Amino acid sequence: MTDTSPRRRAGGRDARIAARAHAHVERQPFLTRTLKPFEVLDEEGLSLLEHNADTILQEVGLEFRGDPEALRLLQDAGADVQGVRVRFERGMARSIIQATAPRLFTQVARNPERSVRLGDPYTVLAPNYGSPFVRDLDNGRRYGTIEDFRNFVKLTYMTPYLHHSGGTVCEPVDVAVNKRHLDMVYAHMRFSDKPFMGSVTHPDRARDTVAMARILFGEDFLETNHVILSLVNANSPLVWDSVMIGALRAYAEANQAVLVTPFILAGAMGPVTAAAVCAQSLAEAMGGMALAQLVRPGAPVVMGSFASSLSMQSGAPTFGTPEPSLVLFAMAALARRLGVPFRSGGNLCASKVADAQAAYESAATFQPTILAGINFVLHAAGWLEGGLTIGYEKFILDLDQCGMASVFVKGIDLSENGQALDAIRDNGPGQHFLGSAHTLANFETAFYRSDTSDYNSFEQWSEEGAKDAATRANAIWKRMLAEYEAPPLDVATDEALMEFIIRRKASFPDSDV
Amino acid sequence: MTDTSPRRRAGGRDARIAARAHAHVERQPFLTRTLKPFEVLDEEGLSLLEHNADTILQEVGLEFRGDPEALRLLQDAGADVQGVRVRFERGMARSIIQATAPRLFTQVARNPERSVRLGDPYTVLAPNYGSPFVRDLDNGRRYGTIEDFRNFVKLTYMTPYLHHSGGTVCEPVDVAVNKRHLDMVYAHMRFSDKPFMGSVTHPDRARDTVAMARILFGEDFLETNHVILSLVNANSPLVWDSVMIGALRAYAEANQAVLVTPFILAGAMGPVTAAAVCAQSLAEAMGGMALAQLVRPGAPVVMGSFASSLSMQSGAPTFGTPEPSLVLFAMAALARRLGVPFRSGGNLCASKVADAQAAYESAATFQPTILAGINFVLHAAGWLEGGLTIGYEKFILDLDQCGMASVFVKGIDLSENGQALDAIRDNGPGQHFLGSAHTLANFETAFYRSDTSDYNSFEQWSEEGAKDAATRANAIWKRMLAEYEAPPLDVATDEALMEFIIRRKASFPDSDV
Repeated sequence: MTDTSPRRRAGGRDARIAARAHAHVERQPFLTRTLKPFEVLDEEGLSLLEHNADTILQEVGLEFRGDPEALRLLQDAGADVQGVRVRFERGMARSIIQATAPRLFTQVARNPERSVRLGDPYTVLAPNYGSPFVRDLDNGRRYGTIEDFRNFVKLTYMTPYLHHSGGTVCEPVDVAVNKRHLDMVYAHMRFSDKPFMGSVTHPDRARDTVAMARILFGEDFLETNHVILSLVNANSPLVWDSVMIGALRAYAEANQAVLVTPFILAGAMGPVTAAAVCAQSLAEAMGGMALAQLVRPGAPVVMGSFASSLSMQSGAPTFGTPEPSLVLFAMAALARRLGVPFRSGGNLCASKVADAQAAYESAATFQPTILAGINFVLHAAGWLEGGLTIGYEKFILDLDQCGMASVFVKGIDLSENGQALDAIRDNGPGQHFLGSAHTLANFETAFYRSDTSDYNSFEQWSEEGAKDAATRANAIWKRMLAEYEAPPLDVATDEALMEFIIRRKASFPDSDV
Repeated sequence: MTDTSPRRRAGGRDARIAARAHAHVERQPFLTRTLKPFEVLDEEGLSLLEHNADTILQEVGLEFRGDPEALRLLQDAGADVQGVRVRFERGMARSIIQATAPRLFTQVARNPERSVRLGDPYTVLAPNYGSPFVRDLDNGRRYGTIEDFRNFVKLTYMTPYLHHSGGTVCEPVDVAVNKRHLDMVYAHMRFSDKPFMGSVTHPDRARDTVAMARILFGEDFLETNHVILSLVNANSPLVWDSVMIGALRAYAEANQAVLVTPFILAGAMGPVTAAAVCAQSLAEAMGGMALAQLVRPGAPVVMGSFASSLSMQSGAPTFGTPEPSLVLFAMAALARRLGVPFRSGGNLCASKVADAQAAYESAATFQPTILAGINFVLHAAGWLEGGLTIGYEKFILDLDQCGMASVFVKGIDLSENGQALDAIRDNGPGQHFLGSAHTLANFETAFYRSDTSDYNSFEQWSEEGAKDAATRANAIWKRMLAEYEAPPLDVATDEALMEFIIRRKASFPDSDV
């Protein structure tokens, strides 16, 4: 397993490109947090939620549907299996996980300087996932295409503020459902050199992802390295279905990592109360993570939580409200106690466009994401409309928030230069610091520089067209795509990948499922 | 001093008005926080900043300009006074403050159910302060008028999410500078029954505020009650000027409360580094608060901090960036250690309009505001363009964020109903919770309901005109103003106030300063 030190600078052509766009930005392969997480529950409260999760696992149990092998593994480990219902003795799931699941692991990127560490005290930011629609200011909302998909992979590759290429950044609806995973995985491999996610929509597609990773990294590399991270969602409440179990098994068998994520809209897939959503999420996640450890002890798992509320008026999901924020903080603490990396959060919103609603809602999830000390953050950029849409402008605006987080997590510099007592002594009362030696020595790196905010005077802003944030972001993503240059990829490897894809695509007919 | 218990419901006609708008909202006179604040520095780091503040006070000192009486008080207390430069022995300012300044006090409102508690564990939210311009979608940006001022007082009165009427919510530029304080204070007294702030632009205007408060509350009431809270800013770096000292003295002499707030744009009024801004802010604030205690021991002081960064490119102030957020967290901790209530934060932004920039920036200040455990929050609604403008739509959107904070600070309900284990037991795997008894029993109060977010489907949102958040907010403030009904005010008191204002206005000519 390659261990990369944080804050190493990326080299080569892409670094020079980034240098043009972000002359002031130190490229970090992931964030290294220095601040203790914010806690919303004390020891007693967290123990109560753990107790309740165990009660759910023991009394109600989980259903593992359509996968006899999973049931066999669970039964052999001591679970009570009745049909597809699996009940765990109190503490059993936790013991299985804690026995073999790593607290911290490396996901290796094909550019080793882009490899990421998943676990404390690190945070890895990844783009939006799963949207069938895309939106930009020029063309409005439309179905996503493979061209859009590649665009977002390229934008993610270029920004210093996302550390991971993600997975299904949007659905490429112009490619057959049963073949698009090949094009998506290839796009991550070809147009970026950051770590990426695999397909989970069918166990065969998971195995295709593994096969392509073996071509990219070498046949044996995966036995001792984790190069794929994939998103496996529970079918809440309390169900793991055959597709997700199949993907989880395929990846765990290949020693690859899975994000095990209950997806609970409170009031629909779980009770309306935060404490219940937490206990249910923990129970579902522990069931899935225990299964992964039984499939292959030591295969990395990341505990996930995706929880939001339901508008009890319209029945639609809400985002950016206070209840899911409380759940997020509590779940992060529960994952720390369990001793596994944690995934949650993002720049989530219900808004249809990149307006004030989108930004308030996104910040109301993203700020807790950073303060809770989350390790892997999907949907850190681009999410609109409850995830139905990824927006180009929203993507750019979210990147800026990710950049700010990279500064915040470092905390306050208490060095002598940070204290700057001499600067205050030298200046004295009533004297401005604009020309002070300390200011001049530090001003290039003193403050985070926003790429998207306008700080000009009202008059200048008006003269320049009174552009709002989304309009400014529109110009930024177009400029970035125009400047994109692909990272180098070995020609033989590229040809082998293409050959694999062509052969696989030819081996079965197109299908819409 | 009237002590009001939190979460008491307001009665009367205004409560019925609010009930129509917010049938689901429990009206709280202020927030009662249940969560421990987020900390960015440990004991060692905070001690270092305190030490540095003492070093600044001892070695450099502060200037107290144009007020011989202030210098006399400080010298009598043991400070080293050379001209207007005042140096404090290490620990001296802290000792003076801790000897007599209250940790917690009540600001009494004319409706006692609206009185607020300033100090831990409470948070009081107040509107924007000091903007010469106003903006709305219909008329764009223009100078504020007394009509605008009254509108914002009315909107603040109506919302359950602001607890305080504030002060100079906008500058009523259509009234003479030297007389507008009379109209502003009267507007707070007449169109609201929430607590309010006094004039600080001249000691005479502070005394006018006190005189009007004596008419409203009764001649002797102020001797034992705090009914005015006023904003006194340092002229950073390290200067207290005569106008602010005069206002501070006028209010402290009358036993009224002052917010003692250094206002530091890092790079201009202080060094560019966060640790230096913190130490300088603490030094300046301690100097001002010590003076208030010497003027009248026990007169309430609230320690303030207003710190942001300067764009080192354009020279303009920035908002919503990570460095001021770190300062905010550290300053809140320093105030807790000093043992005085703390003011900072708000929904601050640099954006000219209520777009995504405005919302991201505002949230990047407001979320830390809530998580840092700040006691008094000015600028919680309406702020645009670095404070140059208050926006009607921005005001409405910010209120929604204030409402969400009121839910968040309560934390997670761990009652049996909150745990909802029976609901999970009864439902079992794969069964949705929409019709569960627990859901039905809780759905009306389970989730915060946004007044401004749109959760409809894309199709429905499009059919309704594809309105962005600002456009929806425009309709909300107009509806609120149309529904406004003034709280009752004793006719004799109202006449006495009017008589005072007419007499004062006639006693000196209009002036622009």
